Amino acid sequence: MLTPATPATLSDLRAALADDTFRDDTAPYFREPRGRYAGTGIVAAPRDTATVARIVAFCHDRRIGIVPYGGGTGLVGGQVMGGDVPPLVVSLERMTAIRAVYPAESVLIAEGGAILTDVQAAAEGAGRMFALSLASQGSARIGGLLSTNAGGVNVLRYGNARAQCLGLEVVRPDGSIWHGLSRLRKDNTGYDLRDLMIGAEGTLGLITAASLRLVPRPAAVGAAMLAVPSPRAALDLLGLAQDRLGDGISAFELMHRQGLDFLREAGLAFRAPFADQPAWMVLIDVGLTAGQSPDAALEDLFAAASDAGLVTDGVIARSGPDRDAMWHIRETIPEGNRRIGSIVSHDIALPLGQVPDFIAQAGARLSRIGDVRINCFGHLGDGNLHYNVFPAQGQSRDAYAHLRGAIKDCVHDLTHAMGGSVSAEHGIGRAKVGDLVRYGDPAKLAMMRAIKTALDPRGIMNPGAVLPDLTDH
Amino acid sequence: MLTPATPATLSDLRAALADDTFRDDTAPYFREPRGRYAGTGIVAAPRDTATVARIVAFCHDRRIGIVPYGGGTGLVGGQVMGGDVPPLVVSLERMTAIRAVYPAESVLIAEGGAILTDVQAAAEGAGRMFALSLASQGSARIGGLLSTNAGGVNVLRYGNARAQCLGLEVVRPDGSIWHGLSRLRKDNTGYDLRDLMIGAEGTLGLITAASLRLVPRPAAVGAAMLAVPSPRAALDLLGLAQDRLGDGISAFELMHRQGLDFLREAGLAFRAPFADQPAWMVLIDVGLTAGQSPDAALEDLFAAASDAGLVTDGVIARSGPDRDAMWHIRETIPEGNRRIGSIVSHDIALPLGQVPDFIAQAGARLSRIGDVRINCFGHLGDGNLHYNVFPAQGQSRDAYAHLRGAIKDCVHDLTHAMGGSVSAEHGIGRAKVGDLVRYGDPAKLAMMRAIKTALDPRGIMNPGAVLPDLTDH
Repeated sequence: MLTPATPATLSDLRAALADDTFRDDTAPYFREPRGRYAGTGIVAAPRDTATVARIVAFCHDRRIGIVPYGGGTGLVGGQVMGGDVPPLVVSLERMTAIRAVYPAESVLIAEGGAILTDVQAAAEGAGRMFALSLASQGSARIGGLLSTNAGGVNVLRYGNARAQCLGLEVVRPDGSIWHGLSRLRKDNTGYDLRDLMIGAEGTLGLITAASLRLVPRPAAVGAAMLAVPSPRAALDLLGLAQDRLGDGISAFELMHRQGLDFLREAGLAFRAPFADQPAWMVLIDVGLTAGQSPDAALEDLFAAASDAGLVTDGVIARSGPDRDAMWHIRETIPEGNRRIGSIVSHDIALPLGQVPDFIAQAGARLSRIGDVRINCFGHLGDGNLHYNVFPAQGQSRDAYAHLRGAIKDCVHDLTHAMGGSVSAEHGIGRAKVGDLVRYGDPAKLAMMRAIKTALDPRGIMNPGAVLPDLTDH
Repeated sequence: MLTPATPATLSDLRAALADDTFRDDTAPYFREPRGRYAGTGIVAAPRDTATVARIVAFCHDRRIGIVPYGGGTGLVGGQVMGGDVPPLVVSLERMTAIRAVYPAESVLIAEGGAILTDVQAAAEGAGRMFALSLASQGSARIGGLLSTNAGGVNVLRYGNARAQCLGLEVVRPDGSIWHGLSRLRKDNTGYDLRDLMIGAEGTLGLITAASLRLVPRPAAVGAAMLAVPSPRAALDLLGLAQDRLGDGISAFELMHRQGLDFLREAGLAFRAPFADQPAWMVLIDVGLTAGQSPDAALEDLFAAASDAGLVTDGVIARSGPDRDAMWHIRETIPEGNRRIGSIVSHDIALPLGQVPDFIAQAGARLSRIGDVRINCFGHLGDGNLHYNVFPAQGQSRDAYAHLRGAIKDCVHDLTHAMGGSVSAEHGIGRAKVGDLVRYGDPAKLAMMRAIKTALDPRGIMNPGAVLPDLTDH
């Protein structure tokens, strides 16, 4: 059983640290974007790794739970812990330094609290690019992005957050520091602890800094919005595009008309790409090297895809603002969804070849559960769909509360049966702990529990996230 | 303390399995390429995962050590265990199936015993490419390549073995099976056990199959051999090439004249690239997309590099055979080294920016230890040098035996001081267990020991590899 974080249990720590280390206004830390979880606790915002280590060592000694806190943008409740035993929330908001940039090595070292857009800007300043990009990049912080192995729109080409990281500095659950800020591209000296910490959602340690891989900036970029007759055609179009442009395809996003209808319904402005709005469309983004023309490449692709019956209409961005307008649609869809109010949202991944069958079968099954609207969109190039279910027009989500579990099970059961994942990029947090137990391979779960117990024997790191709270047993 | 694998201790297992599961001719399994370690034990070669699981469960029950065996090509003794307590060697040589190929998903599922060239051929047959490529690819097997997180010549563009793997099937140390053959590009459901198993060198489980990522084949390939005035110039040339061609640079290999002199001395035929052999040269390989000309791109690069004073001479491959001849030099260098006979070989990685200083300082320091010849070559694009030290001409390596430790420490101490790794791609095996303890971060070592104990509490998996044998204590 853990000790509650209270003014009394933390008084020795408070006395030992700078006066303003603790935050009085704690309310913002106890909310999360979807409003499904409420947190509790006391909040500290240390300024350096040594202080983080001191705080963690103190909590280890007293068996006080710790919730690591980045930008607070997580969608599965990993950053908020409720319940009767309040934790100490350790926010990295004051550790935002870019410690070093090595342009010739394409490496940058950032503290865990650095905001993604600031890291992107530092990379640009060095003539390079930091490839992670996602809708919440203006507030998401590097430590949280790595702890959740964030995805986003460039995974197809550059990989997820894990693939952008060369090394970590981590405060372990006992307060010791792992100095692993490697700038190396290759290092086969022992177990891959870096990738174990990445995606562990703060349950195995607290990421205080990271060594990040930068990539060359594409010489020229371009985008096109193409209307496709079906998800199957979208998948074939992806294959065709990769055959022709290889790694040049940076993003390949599927959207359904429902998403654009929601933008209109929610009063969100956008530039309609097609006069006659198709049911399915794809946003393709390309980043090419010197001597290649994105316009020409996209026109050739469109011609070939037309000949193959894979597209029915298309618009190629003729300028930066054109391209921005296309991306604006894609990136505003989550806000549209929020305003309409989903019954339940899913973040699933499927083997690529299963995506069309999944979309067909899931739609048919849900129609038997109730009168719902589905907004299915996402990173088709990665097999990652955001499959969100909404009330029928004019209905409230409350009217569907009794169907929520059935809808979720329907979508997740089908996903699992098709070899998919019930959390493609959002993680487990607190929202999907039950799903992990339900769908996870037993040997995998046994290994996870063994590792958690081995690395955090007192169970103080983000208790109840990812795995059921071990200290309850 | 482990139980020795003997006909007596294994008799129950032998009786339960097919007659020919065990190998009578065990000698080949007890040698390794560099002749520094000799193994012992009994050898089994099961035909399927269920039998592997049965064997491992038996050994777990009786506390018999297991050495997983792939192609036997490892260079650090991870595949051979000597000592007084012989293990059971489990060879994957009969589990070579390509279980499935999904061309539209760019995924292939291979058993752990599949040989790398066979996997490459299966990918080609599906119109795709498997990006892992290294000198021993005709005998190295997928299970071993993943267990050691092998590198090779394409890491710069495609990453190491880890980056080619989407999922694993693993027999755990207790004989249970983790069914993790995911075909997913994204899956954030829990800890990254895949990457933990990859590079664990068989100490946490035995990889019986893998789901592998394929990539688009480049539309056109090309190569050039360029003479550079210095390692610093080579590094600047890498930056210039990446600025111009981005991901199009597939390989960037540094070579020193010494390597070519060794080929001549060893009587190994090759086509000399330059009439007047420079001290340093770079082999650049490019793979470009439709509409790009490798010849034109390399000519442009050469012109720009000449203007910047980064190259002094150059040859661009005008045909496939030209390109093969260039690669033949690079890939024959290890055989030349073997015939000359090194005093000690090093497989190090450095932060890219440190490579020139390292080469200068290491050479100066070694010259004070003794009269040696240095063949420094490797994957400069990854900061990975094979820094091998040889006797002076006409001298035997035996005459340098007393200097071996001093040379190794000199090279590794300098590498470590510069933020480098003493094993870039070969792993720890048994050869570098002491180096890992000496140079490893204490928090990292503590986590590794905790994980090993948690996942293999009886210490039966590849005892003495990576970490000191825990059952001795």
